[in-house]
Amino acid sequence: MKRIWQTISMISGMVVAGTVGAAPASVQSEREAAFDAQVKSEDQIAWLKQMSSEPNHVGSPHDKANAEFILSQFKSWGWDAHIETFDVLYPTPLSTTVEMVAPQQIKLGGQEPPVPGDATSGNTANALPPYVAFQGDGDVTADLVYVNYGMPEDYKALERRGISVKGKIVLARYGSGWRGLKPKLAQDHGAVGCIIYSDPADDGYNKGDVYPKGGMRPADSVQRGSVADMPLYPGDPLTPGIGAVPGAKRLTREAAANVLKIPVLPMSYGDATKLLAAMGGLFAPEAWHGGLPLAYHIGGDGGVKVHLAVKSDWSLKKLYDVIAMIKGSTYPDQWVIRGNHHDGWVFGAADPLSGNIAMLSEAKALGALVKGGWKPARTIVYASWDGEEPMLLGSTEWAETHAAELKAKAVIYINTDGNGRGYLGLSGSHDWQHLANAVANDVMDPQTNVSVAKRLRAKILTDAFDKIGRPDEVEVAAAEKGGDIPIGPLGSGSDYSSFLQHLGIPALDVAYSGESEGGGSYHAVYDSFDHFTKFDDPGLVYGAVLSKTVGRLVMRIADADTPPMVFGDFADTVARYLTEVKKLADDRRAQDTKRTKLLADKMFDVVKDPRRPVGPPSAEASTPYFELAVLENAVTRLSASAKAYDAAYAAKGASLPPDARAKLNAALRDIDQLLLNAKGLPGRPWYQHMVYAPGRFTGYGAKTLPGVREAIEERRFADADAYAKITADALNAYAARLDTAAAILGEKSPS
Amino acid sequence: MKRIWQTISMISGMVVAGTVGAAPASVQSEREAAFDAQVKSEDQIAWLKQMSSEPNHVGSPHDKANAEFILSQFKSWGWDAHIETFDVLYPTPLSTTVEMVAPQQIKLGGQEPPVPGDATSGNTANALPPYVAFQGDGDVTADLVYVNYGMPEDYKALERRGISVKGKIVLARYGSGWRGLKPKLAQDHGAVGCIIYSDPADDGYNKGDVYPKGGMRPADSVQRGSVADMPLYPGDPLTPGIGAVPGAKRLTREAAANVLKIPVLPMSYGDATKLLAAMGGLFAPEAWHGGLPLAYHIGGDGGVKVHLAVKSDWSLKKLYDVIAMIKGSTYPDQWVIRGNHHDGWVFGAADPLSGNIAMLSEAKALGALVKGGWKPARTIVYASWDGEEPMLLGSTEWAETHAAELKAKAVIYINTDGNGRGYLGLSGSHDWQHLANAVANDVMDPQTNVSVAKRLRAKILTDAFDKIGRPDEVEVAAAEKGGDIPIGPLGSGSDYSSFLQHLGIPALDVAYSGESEGGGSYHAVYDSFDHFTKFDDPGLVYGAVLSKTVGRLVMRIADADTPPMVFGDFADTVARYLTEVKKLADDRRAQDTKRTKLLADKMFDVVKDPRRPVGPPSAEASTPYFELAVLENAVTRLSASAKAYDAAYAAKGASLPPDARAKLNAALRDIDQLLLNAKGLPGRPWYQHMVYAPGRFTGYGAKTLPGVREAIEERRFADADAYAKITADALNAYAARLDTAAAILGEKSPS
Repeated sequence: MKRIWQTISMISGMVVAGTVGAAPASVQSEREAAFDAQVKSEDQIAWLKQMSSEPNHVGSPHDKANAEFILSQFKSWGWDAHIETFDVLYPTPLSTTVEMVAPQQIKLGGQEPPVPGDATSGNTANALPPYVAFQGDGDVTADLVYVNYGMPEDYKALERRGISVKGKIVLARYGSGWRGLKPKLAQDHGAVGCIIYSDPADDGYNKGDVYPKGGMRPADSVQRGSVADMPLYPGDPLTPGIGAVPGAKRLTREAAANVLKIPVLPMSYGDATKLLAAMGGLFAPEAWHGGLPLAYHIGGDGGVKVHLAVKSDWSLKKLYDVIAMIKGSTYPDQWVIRGNHHDGWVFGAADPLSGNIAMLSEAKALGALVKGGWKPARTIVYASWDGEEPMLLGSTEWAETHAAELKAKAVIYINTDGNGRGYLGLSGSHDWQHLANAVANDVMDPQTNVSVAKRLRAKILTDAFDKIGRPDEVEVAAAEKGGDIPIGPLGSGSDYSSFLQHLGIPALDVAYSGESEGGGSYHAVYDSFDHFTKFDDPGLVYGAVLSKTVGRLVMRIADADTPPMVFGDFADTVARYLTEVKKLADDRRAQDTKRTKLLADKMFDVVKDPRRPVGPPSAEASTPYFELAVLENAVTRLSASAKAYDAAYAAKGASLPPDARAKLNAALRDIDQLLLNAKGLPGRPWYQHMVYAPGRFTGYGAKTLPGVREAIEERRFADADAYAKITADALNAYAARLDTAAAILGEKSPS
Repeated sequence: MKRIWQTISMISGMVVAGTVGAAPASVQSEREAAFDAQVKSEDQIAWLKQMSSEPNHVGSPHDKANAEFILSQFKSWGWDAHIETFDVLYPTPLSTTVEMVAPQQIKLGGQEPPVPGDATSGNTANALPPYVAFQGDGDVTADLVYVNYGMPEDYKALERRGISVKGKIVLARYGSGWRGLKPKLAQDHGAVGCIIYSDPADDGYNKGDVYPKGGMRPADSVQRGSVADMPLYPGDPLTPGIGAVPGAKRLTREAAANVLKIPVLPMSYGDATKLLAAMGGLFAPEAWHGGLPLAYHIGGDGGVKVHLAVKSDWSLKKLYDVIAMIKGSTYPDQWVIRGNHHDGWVFGAADPLSGNIAMLSEAKALGALVKGGWKPARTIVYASWDGEEPMLLGSTEWAETHAAELKAKAVIYINTDGNGRGYLGLSGSHDWQHLANAVANDVMDPQTNVSVAKRLRAKILTDAFDKIGRPDEVEVAAAEKGGDIPIGPLGSGSDYSSFLQHLGIPALDVAYSGESEGGGSYHAVYDSFDHFTKFDDPGLVYGAVLSKTVGRLVMRIADADTPPMVFGDFADTVARYLTEVKKLADDRRAQDTKRTKLLADKMFDVVKDPRRPVGPPSAEASTPYFELAVLENAVTRLSASAKAYDAAYAAKGASLPPDARAKLNAALRDIDQLLLNAKGLPGRPWYQHMVYAPGRFTGYGAKTLPGVREAIEERRFADADAYAKITADALNAYAARLDTAAAILGEKSPS
C-alpha cells in the first residue's frame, strides 16, 4: 500500500565497528557471501509470475492460494511455518455507479480495459471493479466541486472564495496527502460524496510515457486504495486494539470511527476530464491546475451534477497470514521479525509482490544456511501478511493478538513492501540507524558496482548540486562527510505501523526506488508481471539487492552479541526534532502576529479583486509560548545518557562476561517500548509512540514528537504543554534505561 | 513590446515632504484635481476603438494614420507638435512556411482565425502573418529537437544527455528569458532553424479560460515579436549609435550583428501539439513539461522532420514618431520627457495602445491646464513612438539623433507601454524612487478607494502571508513599515532603454497590472478592442488611473524648484546590489568547489541511471576572489555623499537664493549621466550605464552593476576586476557631483 518511499535521510553519528556480532568479521562476511549465492533473480521472476497471475485481493481464491504457496515454500526450505487466520471487516463492492447527469448524461467508471502486451490485463473477471475500501454505502446525486488535493489548506482556500461543499460531491485529485484524508475532510465539511481521480501531472504523461509505451498511468487507469481513517487506527475497524479472532468483541460497523459514512469512488483521468471540462464557477487557483488540457474551474455553481452510488458486501472476510520461524540457539525468546504483505489490489506485481518475492529469496537462503549448519543466536520470524491494502489488516491483527508475547520477545520488526530499481530508501527507528548504514556500505549496487550507501550519497550530493528536489541540509552535510546517512522517521502506510507505533518495537522499512519507470501502475490492473518486468525492475535485479540488504540486517541482528544499536544517533535525531518543533512554534507565532495585523489593517479587503474576490483568512487566537523546558531537559539528558552508554559499550562491550551480557541484552531489547505512553496521542489512543506517528493530516507522512508537534499545528495549545511533559517522561525513561545499561558495563550514570 | 511588468519593488528611505515643487501644497493639489477632471475613460475608449480598428504594424497605412491622428490631437490641445520620420531596416515577411514532413506531412502555421465576438479578428487582410522580426531568411528541413525554454541551462541539460542541436531545428517554448535569446542561442549552438511556441502553461488554459470565453491564449493563437539581439543594441540594426536619418552611414544587413542568420517562426500550441505528440527520443526532464496533454520528448532522433522557410522584404521602412512640446517658463532647456509607442503587432489594443491613450488623456489635460493659465517651469516633451515592437526603433533613432541635445536638456524620461487592471508597477532610476512613491500615495485606486501605494503594500504583504510567489524580503520589510516601496531596476523591452542605458537619462516606467484577465492576447490578432475591454481593463478604469499617475509625475517634476530626487535611496539600492554581487561570487565559488569535488569523486558516474543516462556537468575553472574593494569604497563614499546632500537639502533647500538654485539645478540635472562609461559594457558598447542594463541572457530582465555581475556569471573573470574599477569610477563621479551640490548648499564634502 505504501506509496512514498523515503530516501534514507545522516547525522554524523559516532563510528562503530562494521561488525556487531559475536562472530569475527571474516565469518560474518563468509556467511553473507553464502547467503548472496542463494539469492537468485530467476527465482524471483518465477515466483512473481505465478503469484501475480490472478487477482489476489483479500478474499480472492488466488490470495489464499498465494498464502498456501508461500507456506509450502517456507516449509520446503526447512522453516517452522503455519498460516494464521483472522476474520475481519472488509467491504467488497456489490455495485459502483458514477455518472455525470448534468449538463449531459455520461456514464463513467468501470473496470480498466485490457492493453496490448499486458498478458493479465484482460483477466479481470475475478477482479474487483475500481473502488476504495471503507467508504460508506450511499446513493447521491449532487453538484460537483473541485477541491484540488482536498487537504485542509484547500478547504481554507474554498472558504475564502465563499464556496461550501455542504450537500455536494467533491472531486479531489490524488496527491499531497493520504488518500483517506480526502473523503474524510470532505465528509467533515458536509459533502455527501467524494471522487478521487489520478491527475496526469501526478503519475500520468507528465511523469513519463504512459502504459503500454511506458510505465506511467494511461487515461483509463484507476488508483484503488483504502480510505479508512488510518491515522485514527489501522487494522480491522471492528476490533481496535485486539485481535480479530473467533469470539473477539466486535464493534458494530456504525460504531467503527475509522469507517467513512459517505460514498467514495476513484476515477481515471479519462473520466475526470469529462467532468472538469464541463465545470464552471470560479477559475481555480493556478496551483490547483494539474496536467489536463483545460482551464480547471471550481464548479459548485450547479452546472455539473454527478450521480454517485456504492453498495458493498460488508461481511467478514478471512485473512491468511503466513508465519515462519527459525528458532534461535542462544536467545530463542528474542525475535527478529521481518514481514511483507502478499495481498494486492488486483495482480499486485509491484505492490506488494516485488517485496514478497525478495523476502522469499531471503527465506530460501536462510533455510540453506541453517541446513548448512548455521544456528542463529536469536529467533528469526518471517511473516507474509494478508490484508495490508485495505488497512494493514493482517499485520495489525497478528500484532494485536500476540501483543504480550511480542512485547516480551521482539527485538525489531523489519518491513518491505513494493520494490523497484534505483536508490536505497531506508526509514525507521534511529537507534538502528548505524546498523542500517553498515549494511548499506556492504551491499553493492549492481548497475554501478559501488555500495548502495555510496550510490545514495552520490544521489544526495548530485541532486543538491543539480537542484533536483529540495535538499535536506542534514542529509547533504552527512553525505559530504561520507559517513552514516540519516534515516527518515516512519509514518504509516505499510505493515510496520502496529509493531512500531502500537507496541513500541523498533522498526526499519527498506526499499529501492527512484529509477523505476513504473510508478503509474500503482493500485491499478496494470500493476502486472509484464509491467513490472518491463518498467519497474527488469530482470528483478533490484529484487535480489533488496534480499541481500534485508538478509544482512536479519543475520547481523540475529547473531549480534548485543542488539547493535547506537543511541547517540537516536538522541541527536530527537534533538533535531525538538529544534524543528521550537521553530514551528516560533513560525506560528510570527504568522499569527502577521495575520492579526493584516486583518486589523483590512489589508485583505484593500487587495481584493472585485472580479475574483478572495476574502480574508479566518482570525485565529495567537499561538502562545509553550512549556517546552521539560522536553529540552529530557533531550539534554537523553543525549548525555546515550553518549555515555555508546562510549562505555565501545570500550567494554566486546569483553563482557556472559551474565552481564544477558543482563545488557534484557535491558536493551525492549528499550524502545519506553517511548510509548498508554494513553496514546490526543484523540487517537491506539497510537502510543511519543516520537513517531503518522500525521493526522498527512497519513503516510510521519510526524515526529507528534503529541507536541501536531498540537501546535492544530492549535490544541493545552495539548502541546501536556504532551511536552508526557513526551519528556518517555524520553527520561529511555535515558534512565540507558543509564541502567551503562551501569551493567560498569559506568556511572551521567545524570 | 514589454512583457514583464515588475511590481515596484522599498528601501526605508528618508521621508521627504510630499510636495517637492515651488508651489505650495494646496496649489499643487488643486492643479492635480483640475488635471484629474480632464481625464476621461470615455475619451480613452473612443481613442482605443479607433486606433485599434486596423492592423497598425510599422509600415501599415493605419500605423501612419494613427500617428497623424495623435499629431492632430496634440495640436488641438495646444501642443507644439510634429512628426519626425526615420528610415529603418524592418523586415516584413513575403512568405512563411512551417510544416511537419516526417513522420507525416502536416501543414502548420498561417494566420490566426476569426473568433466570435471579436469584431476585428476577421479583419486580417492587411495584417502580417505570424512571424518574428529580424530572423534570417532561409529554407531548411531538418530533425526537430525540443529545447524547453531554449536558455543556456537548457543547452547544458541537453549536453549532459548527449544531445546536440547542430544541423537541427529547435522547438523552444516562450517564457523564462527573452524571445530573441532563444533563436540566438540555437544559432550559437549550430541549429539551422528555430520555432518558438506558446505553451498553454505560460499564457493558455493553465492561466485562465481561453479567448473568447476568457482572456487567455486559445490553441490557434500565436505570439509575434522581435528576435533581434536586443541585449547587443536596440534600434535600427543598420545604424547603431546614430540616427537613421537620410544620409546616415548604414551597415549592410549582413554586418548588422543583432540580426539573426537562421529562419525562425512562432507557433500556436495547437500546431506545437502535433509536433510534440510525434516526437520520440529521450523523455524530457520533468521541469521541461508544459501544459499539453502528452509526454514531452526531446526528439533529435530523426523521428520528426520539419520544413521551415521564411523570406522577408528587407527594404527600409518609414517610422512616424510624434513629438509634442509645452515650453517651460523658467527652465525651457530642462526637459521632462514622456513617451509610449503607437505601433502594434496587429491591432495592438493592449500593447501598446492602452498606454498610448492614457498618454493622450494626460496631453489633453495638460493642454487644458496650460489654456487655463498654467506655465510649467520646465519644458514638457511628449512622444508617441513608432516601431517599438520590432526593436525600440522609433525611440532609439530619435534618442540617437538628438543625443547631444538630450544629454544637455533631459531631466528624466517617463515611459509607459501596455496597461491593465490591477496594482501599480513602477521601475526605474532609484534617485527618483521617493517621488514615485509620493505620487503613488496621492493616486486613488478606483476599485477599493485607497491609494495605489497602500493597495500595492497590501498586495506585497498579503502575497507574502499567503505564500503567493516568492516574496522579496526588502520589499516586504518596506511594506511592513508603511513607507516608500522600493522600485525595480529597468532592463529592456520598452522605449526607456536608449534614454537610460545609452544616454544616462534617468527613467521611470509605469503600468498597472495583475488583475487583467487578458495576458493571453499578447502579440496576437486577438489583442483587440473587444478583448481589451472585456478582459484587460473594462471601462478603461485603469487607463484613467495611469494618466493620473503619470500626469502627477510630469507636473511635479516640471514645476519642481530642484529635481525632486532622493539620493540616499539610490545609494542604499546600489549598496544592496553590491551585496548581491558579493553573494553571487561567494555562491559561485562554493558551487565550483562542489562541482570539482563531485567530478573528482566520480559522483555523477556513480549516480547515473544506465537506462536514462545523464552525464556529469563540464569542469569549470574555479571562480576566484575579485578586487571588489574599490567598489565597496565607492559605495561607502556614495552613501555618505548622498545622505549628506539629502540632509543639507532638507535643511536648506527651501530657502535657496535664485542663483544658487540655478547652480544646484545644473549640478543635479545630468548627474545620472555620470553613471555612464563611454566604452560601454563588455562586448556591447552601446550599453553604457554601469548600474542598469538588460541582461545578456535575460533580455527584458535587468542586471544591476552589470559590468561586474555578468562577468562573474559568465566566467569572464578579468572583466569582473576591470569593471569593478570602471563601475567604482562612475559611482565616485556621481558622489563627487553630490558633494558639489552639497557645497552649493553650503555643506562641506563628507569625503
